[in-house]
Amino acid sequence: MRSDENWLVRRTAADSDRLGETESVFALSNGWVGWRGTLDEGEPYGMSGSYLNGFHEQRELSYPENGYAFPQRSDTVVSAPNAALIRLWVGGDALDLRTGTLRAHERVLDLGAGVVRRDTEWISPGGHGVRVRSTRLVSLPRHAIAAVRYEVEPLGDAPVELRLCSDVQANERVPERHDPRAASVIRDPLNAEAHRCDGGSGVLLHRTDRSAQRVAVAVTHEAEIPEGFATSDDCTPDRLRMCVEGRLRPGHRLRITKYAAHECTPVDGMAANELADLVVAEADAAREHGFDALLADQRGALDGHWQTADVELDGDPELQQAIRFAVFHLLQAGRAEGDRTIPAKGLTGNGYDGHVLWDTEGYVLPVLTYLAPEVTRSALRWRHAHLPEARERAVELRLPGATFPWRTISGRECSGYWPAGTAALHVNADIADAVLRYVAATRDDDLLAGVGLELLVATARLWHGFGYFSDEGAFHITGVTGPDEYAALVDDNLFTNVMARRNLLGAADAAERHPGRAEELGVNQAEIAGWRSAADAVYVPYDRKRGVHQQAAGFTEQPEWDFAALTEDDYPLLLHFPYLELYRKQVVKQADLVLAMQRCPGEFTAEEKRRNFAYYQARTVRDSSLSAASQAVLAAEIGHLDLAYDLFAEAALHDLADLGDKTSDGLHLAALAGAWTAVVEGFGGLRDQRGELCFDPRLPARLDRLAFGLRWRGQRLRVTLTRDEARYELPDAAPEVEVTLRHAGEPVTVTGRTAVTRPMPPVPDPGPEPPSPAGRRPARRA
Amino acid sequence: MRSDENWLVRRTAADSDRLGETESVFALSNGWVGWRGTLDEGEPYGMSGSYLNGFHEQRELSYPENGYAFPQRSDTVVSAPNAALIRLWVGGDALDLRTGTLRAHERVLDLGAGVVRRDTEWISPGGHGVRVRSTRLVSLPRHAIAAVRYEVEPLGDAPVELRLCSDVQANERVPERHDPRAASVIRDPLNAEAHRCDGGSGVLLHRTDRSAQRVAVAVTHEAEIPEGFATSDDCTPDRLRMCVEGRLRPGHRLRITKYAAHECTPVDGMAANELADLVVAEADAAREHGFDALLADQRGALDGHWQTADVELDGDPELQQAIRFAVFHLLQAGRAEGDRTIPAKGLTGNGYDGHVLWDTEGYVLPVLTYLAPEVTRSALRWRHAHLPEARERAVELRLPGATFPWRTISGRECSGYWPAGTAALHVNADIADAVLRYVAATRDDDLLAGVGLELLVATARLWHGFGYFSDEGAFHITGVTGPDEYAALVDDNLFTNVMARRNLLGAADAAERHPGRAEELGVNQAEIAGWRSAADAVYVPYDRKRGVHQQAAGFTEQPEWDFAALTEDDYPLLLHFPYLELYRKQVVKQADLVLAMQRCPGEFTAEEKRRNFAYYQARTVRDSSLSAASQAVLAAEIGHLDLAYDLFAEAALHDLADLGDKTSDGLHLAALAGAWTAVVEGFGGLRDQRGELCFDPRLPARLDRLAFGLRWRGQRLRVTLTRDEARYELPDAAPEVEVTLRHAGEPVTVTGRTAVTRPMPPVPDPGPEPPSPAGRRPARRA
Repeated sequence: MRSDENWLVRRTAADSDRLGETESVFALSNGWVGWRGTLDEGEPYGMSGSYLNGFHEQRELSYPENGYAFPQRSDTVVSAPNAALIRLWVGGDALDLRTGTLRAHERVLDLGAGVVRRDTEWISPGGHGVRVRSTRLVSLPRHAIAAVRYEVEPLGDAPVELRLCSDVQANERVPERHDPRAASVIRDPLNAEAHRCDGGSGVLLHRTDRSAQRVAVAVTHEAEIPEGFATSDDCTPDRLRMCVEGRLRPGHRLRITKYAAHECTPVDGMAANELADLVVAEADAAREHGFDALLADQRGALDGHWQTADVELDGDPELQQAIRFAVFHLLQAGRAEGDRTIPAKGLTGNGYDGHVLWDTEGYVLPVLTYLAPEVTRSALRWRHAHLPEARERAVELRLPGATFPWRTISGRECSGYWPAGTAALHVNADIADAVLRYVAATRDDDLLAGVGLELLVATARLWHGFGYFSDEGAFHITGVTGPDEYAALVDDNLFTNVMARRNLLGAADAAERHPGRAEELGVNQAEIAGWRSAADAVYVPYDRKRGVHQQAAGFTEQPEWDFAALTEDDYPLLLHFPYLELYRKQVVKQADLVLAMQRCPGEFTAEEKRRNFAYYQARTVRDSSLSAASQAVLAAEIGHLDLAYDLFAEAALHDLADLGDKTSDGLHLAALAGAWTAVVEGFGGLRDQRGELCFDPRLPARLDRLAFGLRWRGQRLRVTLTRDEARYELPDAAPEVEVTLRHAGEPVTVTGRTAVTRPMPPVPDPGPEPPSPAGRRPARRA
Repeated sequence: MRSDENWLVRRTAADSDRLGETESVFALSNGWVGWRGTLDEGEPYGMSGSYLNGFHEQRELSYPENGYAFPQRSDTVVSAPNAALIRLWVGGDALDLRTGTLRAHERVLDLGAGVVRRDTEWISPGGHGVRVRSTRLVSLPRHAIAAVRYEVEPLGDAPVELRLCSDVQANERVPERHDPRAASVIRDPLNAEAHRCDGGSGVLLHRTDRSAQRVAVAVTHEAEIPEGFATSDDCTPDRLRMCVEGRLRPGHRLRITKYAAHECTPVDGMAANELADLVVAEADAAREHGFDALLADQRGALDGHWQTADVELDGDPELQQAIRFAVFHLLQAGRAEGDRTIPAKGLTGNGYDGHVLWDTEGYVLPVLTYLAPEVTRSALRWRHAHLPEARERAVELRLPGATFPWRTISGRECSGYWPAGTAALHVNADIADAVLRYVAATRDDDLLAGVGLELLVATARLWHGFGYFSDEGAFHITGVTGPDEYAALVDDNLFTNVMARRNLLGAADAAERHPGRAEELGVNQAEIAGWRSAADAVYVPYDRKRGVHQQAAGFTEQPEWDFAALTEDDYPLLLHFPYLELYRKQVVKQADLVLAMQRCPGEFTAEEKRRNFAYYQARTVRDSSLSAASQAVLAAEIGHLDLAYDLFAEAALHDLADLGDKTSDGLHLAALAGAWTAVVEGFGGLRDQRGELCFDPRLPARLDRLAFGLRWRGQRLRVTLTRDEARYELPDAAPEVEVTLRHAGEPVTVTGRTAVTRPMPPVPDPGPEPPSPAGRRPARRA
């Protein structure tokens, strides 16, 4: 099991023009260390990168026209010293796939084993053939550890002269790009503090200037060295190099196993030598444990995950692979220990400067809440740890409560374009929503009473102070930016408003549930009553004439966008049209009102959803990878199953097929999360309705069977859909365990004793598929 | 006449902490060359500057988050080589007012003579006394020429050793400031191409890198040198230095007169040696003409101006001086020849990077149209010369017609914050308005048929394509920024809408008046009909409940600003509050709806003006120097004469008293223009009502008599107001000349034969003065 083709992602020599993309796709991570899937030998590369969660440098931001509270510094992810490198010279020629003759070349990401394997047969320019195999892992159980096993054999009948060097390289060059969505580049961000190496082991110690962080990488090796091979070390402040050199005879093998340990701390958090000692000990312990044991641990950890998380799509092998790929990257992106969060690109690339965006709470955590709730808890605790910075920012903005950053690593606001950053206050409601969703799914009352309540209260205070009551008694939130980035500084963005309502009510409920803690936070009855009255009065913009909700006040009265006048080259629109045009017209970058219908389904009737979906589908261009999945969920709910399936495919293939041409900067974790969401919320019809677990499943025509699992209040629930029936079971539960859920609106109780089977509900007839903007319907697949 | 105290602005040693401000106040200009009023010896200084109209360098703009069509380069004014410098050493000590003993020191700006005079008695640290007198002018008739006469006499009984050097210095250091409204600094922008000097004459030739402009400055001298003095030259690529040295006996005088000529051209516009020869010839010609002749010419040119432009305020000597100061700077800022425009700070400083903003067409040209219409014509021709860049920008923005830059020197958009730059499309209507106002005042049909029509058509096309008709048939202009910079990206900014209407109708009328020219521009009947139907349908936002117009749609429903919570230190608000707060609340930086009532008086009834004024007065903080005058005009019209007078005083004293603490960067020409506007449109009640000249005068209580003049269709009209009557006369007109105007709504015909006198109309009783925001009422004076 978990070894057939659907568990493997392959790249061969034919993919050599997809270097950067492959590096992202093959990135390995454990939520603390992330290694991009660069070739062992480091060349050719798209972009190297070895990232530690939270490790960054700062750079100055400068504005042609500065403004009050514009952030003056930004965090930027920088690569830790890269310990993945193993360079090989064959008869004096460096192994480089661009030279010599490539007889065979394949790399495989094994989603079940959690490794990247490589198998290359190469004839050097000098005519010497070698077979190179390697296996790389970033250890899920051991946070600091990554390891590589690397083997070389002669291909021909003659012995070959080999030189193999295992490197750790600091301050590798990062290519500069000129796209607003790419990373800014800081040259040589790491300042050497110490280096040592001895007998195949070594450590590099560096620090950053402005963020004042220290990073240490230690390596140690096991070598199966044929007789006659010599070893040597060559270490400089920015590079450890440990080499073996000699003549390898046919039938013999050179095998090196490299164990690397990574740590970073604030400079004032741990002394340099202590940190160096720590990584050395971690690397040594890993070597002692042994590579085979690391491989076994890795599979064991993944088996545990897959048991819950596997999604089975019978009938579409390509998307079967894609959904497993998506879930694999989600699972390895987070970490339960250490109160760490997940940046928008995880630890797979430096896109968006390595920043954490609302993607985390808005898209990724709602999935991990059901697959690995301990990771969600860790990420929520990370947000709470940065509540002081969010409070400071609110003071600076002259607002009450807290305002969390639109983008950050350190916890401080790093957004350099305030209309789409500071003004996007909904991130605060997204965080509150993630708390509430997590608590509903886990009943983790400790978290609620602790960090949860504090997050809910601080954000509720923001909304209560930011919004205002009109003379007519409605509660308005004006001058903000919602999810759709082709609009900005709007009044009463519907998504923001209904999420703020959820935030206010959630804070009120939680404060009443934990009155002692609430009192410590200065919450009294009057404040709670104020939150509830604001929530009750939240304005929900609706266009009576057109019979649809408005994305924001007045949206449906704006001029229409002339989609028919555009060609494919005009997309993404943000690279070809000014905000001046985009903002004032009815063109939607990404699901916004549709996202509101997904997140807050109880706010809309079925008929409203049908009409709203059709209206916004016709105006949404999906220039953001965040969009397709939400549209898929609503399309499925309404009954447009073919459209839903095509939108799901777009989300699922976003990175595997590099649909956005940006995968080289790192994976889009929110799009990957969206693939799961499209399946489980879309076809599974999962909704959290005021804490109740609801399913309203629909099997798309393309599939014969669909199965998925999730964790709900400590239980593992497995859901299997076929053409005729839906089956709900608790495979691990004791017989007396009961879980109550709803199937198509009807209460169903599943026990550890018996699975429950129900007929699939009829799919509503939604009429013809609503049009997408000209040329922007997702590719037909269903 | 024109020599009493009200014609003089004095600064003494007591003002030594107001160096930068004094340099701006004492700046001399002829619209082509501008010399800041730095001390002759160059030290101490606030900021040196010698500016040539249009001479600039470019710098890169970079954005933390770039966007489509964000300008990537900006123009920045740079100083030409500074030829004003005359350095003196007395017994080896450099004359420096910070050293030695200052027995007496006074500098005077003479508004009638157009010169700055200086008289200093100084005892050097070594104990040698000298009296230094100088007179400086920038020649109004000779565009390239500035000149200084400099005299030294011993104060005591003993001879003194003197060394006097007349310098021309390129690449002087400019102090860096950290205010978004200050200039960016380019170090050493001038690259030396050639220098030569010989026998007291010399020339420096430089060029800029990126803007590819060449600048040449030549100087020549007349020296009255006592016997025994030696002369020497010392010239380097960045500095000409011509010195005399010797022992000056009591009763004798050293006198140097320096003539400087300035030119700049595009590098490909004129060969270097040609340009050098040109300035040398110009300097030589000026010397030949002689300093006394230059002085006489200067007074003659100013006499011609003052005859029309003088404003007499009997009863308030301080404001009498201030209004003359304002008019003087307006008159010397522009130039009839060469199709030059007037930057926001004229040629008096480098504030706003030396950019031309809407201040020119919005505030300065409406005044010069009546005082020096040939200057307005020149500035309108300058706009027309940059129509190609405005068309290119429209193409980039995917808009029809032309979009003129928000700020520029070269004609290309240089705004680095698009919500308050690119989005402020009203600049296009302001340009159209300046054309229409000029044509109404001058009947210059040639200009209308030529550059005027082309400007009107290009801007009308923008509005017609940018706006749209709602289902209800109203024409809306959405997603733009109006004059008030504490709002942005609003819908239906009332000022923008009514100015766009004026633009559309003006274009239609002009096209029908010049059908042949219109046809050449591709205008047909259908297009004209389209403009008229858009103009007829322009939406004018009005709040029925409150009975006031809205600055923009929804403005009056926004939350109120809590002015009572603020202290004086919170102003200007833009330095203490984020746009996030400013934009979404009812706080107004500067007259916007009030400006609409000033510019388009026929759009509002008297009662609407009264109610609107009260509403917006209570919410307008005047954090912009553009505001007070417009508020004064409306306050006067409505009958709040004391408030109007206090607002007028604020505009008039803005730079003389440095009310905004920014005068050191250069004078605020729009505020100076506002001083005249407050008098003539406010107390004189002047309005251009569809081309008809109307007066509805009110004499403020503080004044016994008020007189002003203006040019109207080739005639000089003089208006004199006393408590009882208004007098209209045409002092220069032939007897048969007739001008028809309205006095308090009644038609009046003035002829060259007879003045007309009418009783002052009664001032309406507007009730109590409307409140200003707490702490923001202008200082009481009336």
